[in-house]
Amino acid sequence: MMTTEEDLTEQCISSETISTGGMLTLKCDQVRLPNGRSSQREYVVHPGASVVVALLPNGRVVLEKQYRYPLHQVFIELPAGKIDAAEAPLLTAQRELLEETGYSAQQWISLGQQHPCIGYSDEVIYMYLALDLTAGLHRRDEDESLEVFDLSLDDCLLLIEQGGISDGKTMLALLMAKSYLAQHPDVLPSN
Amino acid sequence: MMTTEEDLTEQCISSETISTGGMLTLKCDQVRLPNGRSSQREYVVHPGASVVVALLPNGRVVLEKQYRYPLHQVFIELPAGKIDAAEAPLLTAQRELLEETGYSAQQWISLGQQHPCIGYSDEVIYMYLALDLTAGLHRRDEDESLEVFDLSLDDCLLLIEQGGISDGKTMLALLMAKSYLAQHPDVLPSN
Repeated sequence: MMTTEEDLTEQCISSETISTGGMLTLKCDQVRLPNGRSSQREYVVHPGASVVVALLPNGRVVLEKQYRYPLHQVFIELPAGKIDAAEAPLLTAQRELLEETGYSAQQWISLGQQHPCIGYSDEVIYMYLALDLTAGLHRRDEDESLEVFDLSLDDCLLLIEQGGISDGKTMLALLMAKSYLAQHPDVLPSN
Repeated sequence: MMTTEEDLTEQCISSETISTGGMLTLKCDQVRLPNGRSSQREYVVHPGASVVVALLPNGRVVLEKQYRYPLHQVFIELPAGKIDAAEAPLLTAQRELLEETGYSAQQWISLGQQHPCIGYSDEVIYMYLALDLTAGLHRRDEDESLEVFDLSLDDCLLLIEQGGISDGKTMLALLMAKSYLAQHPDVLPSN
């Protein structure tokens, strides 16, 4: 069976916003399926986000521990955050790294994009590698509780294997960074 | 600054279901922050899912092209699907592989778990490697439009680098499979 993209495409018939609560916008669209029938699709509208693998001069990765309410669990995560209105994803990455950890970086390398949740969200996450870090003061607001720490990249990969890092965006950005660094060892600090 | 898990934890004050539309359940909880203030947390309640890296006897990976309405785009994905009520994640993986592609597998290896969307969903995705495949008839329903094809694992990894595969669960499961196979080359077919 050969299928063209057109054969797979679903067309919007009508669109309704179910909730614009505080943070999340939920939409419900009536759609026309490729076979001519109609169905409905519900999804979260998301502004997108950026995530950062920031490498310290000693090669260690800047990480955070943060409580994530939907799973009632503390997660080990990379610095990350939502894109502000009209903000370029690289600026989001730089802003979030500074706000959450106090670090700024001289060198920024794109590690590509991921769509974390294509079944029910339009979120895209831009992944970056940040090098040549300078420490400074964080700008976390009073309601933002997180702990910043660092680990070697090898220990991060071990934690992924052992299940100690299970946040998808963090796992994927770390593995993409490892793959990038294996192909570009010259970008690593020589000490 | 040293922080304990308790210092990061947010306590539920009250919980409200905003929408139980068709597919998605959206909740809004009032929570007590570690600093004593209150805030609200909105999130999608999800049953969890399983995703499968199924390797054909020739070493190629079984993939799908599927239209994803939230992003209005056809994605290259691994076979995957939601966990039915009281279903073990491995059974979900076996059922979805059979339903979507017609393949069944003799050997199943866990590749761990990922949480794709910890900011606003409680979804967990169980990742599996499936080997010793037997082809059969798929059981897709009339409203399920997807195209099944296969690629070598190396080509999958190249597509990830080039941005041709950007579905997070698929990227991560493929990279976890590659890492597993590098450590366990004996599980691969010898031909």
